[in-house]
Amino acid sequence: MENFRETVKLEEAVRLVNHGPTVFVSAAHGGRKNVMTAAWVMPLDVNPPKVLAVINAGAFTRELMEKSGEFALSVPSRVLADKLMGAGSSSGRDGDKFEKLGLTDFAAEKISAPLVEGCVGWLECRLIRNAGNEAEHDLFMAEVVAAQADSRVFSNGQWKFETAPDDLRTLHYITDGKFYAAGNAVTGKA
Amino acid sequence: MENFRETVKLEEAVRLVNHGPTVFVSAAHGGRKNVMTAAWVMPLDVNPPKVLAVINAGAFTRELMEKSGEFALSVPSRVLADKLMGAGSSSGRDGDKFEKLGLTDFAAEKISAPLVEGCVGWLECRLIRNAGNEAEHDLFMAEVVAAQADSRVFSNGQWKFETAPDDLRTLHYITDGKFYAAGNAVTGKA
Repeated sequence: MENFRETVKLEEAVRLVNHGPTVFVSAAHGGRKNVMTAAWVMPLDVNPPKVLAVINAGAFTRELMEKSGEFALSVPSRVLADKLMGAGSSSGRDGDKFEKLGLTDFAAEKISAPLVEGCVGWLECRLIRNAGNEAEHDLFMAEVVAAQADSRVFSNGQWKFETAPDDLRTLHYITDGKFYAAGNAVTGKA
Repeated sequence: MENFRETVKLEEAVRLVNHGPTVFVSAAHGGRKNVMTAAWVMPLDVNPPKVLAVINAGAFTRELMEKSGEFALSVPSRVLADKLMGAGSSSGRDGDKFEKLGLTDFAAEKISAPLVEGCVGWLECRLIRNAGNEAEHDLFMAEVVAAQADSRVFSNGQWKFETAPDDLRTLHYITDGKFYAAGNAVTGKA
């Protein structure tokens, strides 16, 4: 597969999830890895870049996140809608979910968690532990320590869905298997 | 103005922000009211419905939120892009921002905060106080106590952008005045 990945500057990294895409969350620990789906992910700060993610109690990926202190967010394009639903409806405890779903992973630059091939953005995250938020709200905070994007659709710190192939648009989940893809560009003037 | 507002069931309320729209945040206290823009808002739980919002320290709306313990989220459609930028780039301390921006507000059902007319979804929220998150991360948690939506574009717990007027699509912020509107529907199958 041709590789269009380019490094995203850390101070521009949270723009990859600023518009609310649904993402893959992945983690690895002790020779095991897993991937799940999360719609509830957003920036918490720009510089240093931080993100928030709500991760269900009991998820195998969460166990790997907690043990390793690291996780990755991979931002899928619309062609991965079925894989997102698949990753959200089965457990990695029952076998390698990457293999089961036909997802390929590749090595992150700074963390142990695997990144999902074929996505359009990737954020490598280190947990900022907060026992209260994690236990009471399934809410995780993390600092983004590296980021990459598919340069066909994100470059110079900007998404460019309007000029990229339509298949590279991000997905925004509602419920019951239904997403909306990122649509037309709109400019606002104060 | 014709009114298409309908009550949204509480257990379906967070679907109004599940896909990551940028929103107006408003609050009132002691005879004063204000409205600001927030791109960093997402669900925290479905039932009871809860949301998270990152609200800058120093914002006048935050002061009103903290004093009243309540705030509203109004989900704008694309025709309000300029108002969103305007509400995000001026302070209510300098005068009534609703008036300055030409925004009309209307009364919420269960809280004191005003709702923004012309939006397509509204969430009435009561703060779940968390001093650590608020002070360290500008992060607020709240329970949604009432919700409404424009029935032309959200009904029976579902957005229906694909059949509604194009002007009713929600906005998803990137940076520098640039948004993407909600685009085509995509169905995923596990």
